Amino acid sequence: ENVLESEPIVYRRIMVPHSGSKEFCTDSGLVVPSVSYELHKKLLAVAEKHGLTLERRLEMTGVCASQMALTLLGGPNRLNPKNVHQRPTVALLCGPHVKGAQGISCGRHLANHDVQVILFLPNFVKMLESITNELSLFSKTQGQQVSSLKDLPTSPVDLVINCLDCPENAFLRDQPWYKAAVAWANQNRAPVLSIDPSVHEVEQGIDAKWSLALGLPLPLGDQAGRVYLCDIGIPQQVFQEVGINYHSPFGCKFVVPLHSA
Amino acid sequence: ENVLESEPIVYRRIMVPHSGSKEFCTDSGLVVPSVSYELHKKLLAVAEKHGLTLERRLEMTGVCASQMALTLLGGPNRLNPKNVHQRPTVALLCGPHVKGAQGISCGRHLANHDVQVILFLPNFVKMLESITNELSLFSKTQGQQVSSLKDLPTSPVDLVINCLDCPENAFLRDQPWYKAAVAWANQNRAPVLSIDPSVHEVEQGIDAKWSLALGLPLPLGDQAGRVYLCDIGIPQQVFQEVGINYHSPFGCKFVVPLHSA
Repeated sequence: ENVLESEPIVYRRIMVPHSGSKEFCTDSGLVVPSVSYELHKKLLAVAEKHGLTLERRLEMTGVCASQMALTLLGGPNRLNPKNVHQRPTVALLCGPHVKGAQGISCGRHLANHDVQVILFLPNFVKMLESITNELSLFSKTQGQQVSSLKDLPTSPVDLVINCLDCPENAFLRDQPWYKAAVAWANQNRAPVLSIDPSVHEVEQGIDAKWSLALGLPLPLGDQAGRVYLCDIGIPQQVFQEVGINYHSPFGCKFVVPLHSA
Repeated sequence: ENVLESEPIVYRRIMVPHSGSKEFCTDSGLVVPSVSYELHKKLLAVAEKHGLTLERRLEMTGVCASQMALTLLGGPNRLNPKNVHQRPTVALLCGPHVKGAQGISCGRHLANHDVQVILFLPNFVKMLESITNELSLFSKTQGQQVSSLKDLPTSPVDLVINCLDCPENAFLRDQPWYKAAVAWANQNRAPVLSIDPSVHEVEQGIDAKWSLALGLPLPLGDQAGRVYLCDIGIPQQVFQEVGINYHSPFGCKFVVPLHSA
């Protein structure tokens, strides 16, 4: 048995109720276990009960996801006053659900920061309130909204952001617009960032270069690419209430890279 | 008349209706004019009309202000797993108004990131809904809430965050708790960050080392210390609606330093 110096670093500071699933770790070696979709959903529901409303989460996810996207687009090298005539272009693919609303929020913040955003959202007669709220704000930016894939650029964009999939609306995956959007993304040679991606089994989806998981990661596979974790503002005792012993792995950051442990 | 090269950099990309007031500029020389309190208020009201609710603004301001505070506290040098036993301490002074709610949101995000937060908020029988919502979330963190100045630390903290003042509630400045809080802050030798500070005339307030202005700065004076500007997610056409010709000065950042022009 090793005797360590006083006050050793504890690397396992997050304990989930059903351990044994896939684990990740941060750059500094902190272990971040994955959680099931059901536990993740319960965590958000309890957070909501304490006042972390969907609206707040949409805003925070939008800010942090756009900060990550701005870095991927080249950060200060790309976005500075000298470069105003070479604005980067982002194609944002959104489904008509909460995951899509997260994407639209991210798109608004990107458009606010001089990124040329083309939002694809299929036409539905009745939209979720969270979608219509996000659209109303997005429409006040210079961003462009299209409902037909024909209106997406044919030449490669700088970044594709994928918010098409939502496990609650799995039936959408069989609809023509969904399949066409997947085909478009796979054909456009731009790198893909997936926000809050699902765990895919055998399925024809969009392979991501990067994925942004929210709060705690699901057991994401290779299709998710390089996984990043986003702080979505959930306080410690909310984790506790769903049986997760939690200590922030974020340090001073709001988005941190994860590695397969 | 000078003939410039093609596509010169335009440094004046924000035009306000009543120019002639104090101006600032960014590191890259972009001019950021100040606006009056009345115009700033109108800007927020129009943003709210389009769906940028107070709740969203509180969340976004909390995230961006905490990102700034985390940097001021030492960033990754201070907040890393090896330093878990030397958590920084922040005293957060909040009044019972929307500016105070902004502070509590910032305090929650700091507490989520391992900062020891002591929130001072005076006791009032009836509180604003935005305050009670923020308190409910804050109470789920490890942060501590006190309503008496006697419960604030007597030794210097790492940072004082000042959210005491609100022009809409100017009468509070005469109340004993307010004066005592000002005295406590001036006596504790910690540096002060003011979030969304008012423009002071002759008044005994708290001198800030740094100030964080939201959206566009007021004509802040020396009492505000070094001024930073925070993106609060207002789309371009909302600025247009109140007569401001706006082009983001943020580049890829959400908080940028301003200098007196």
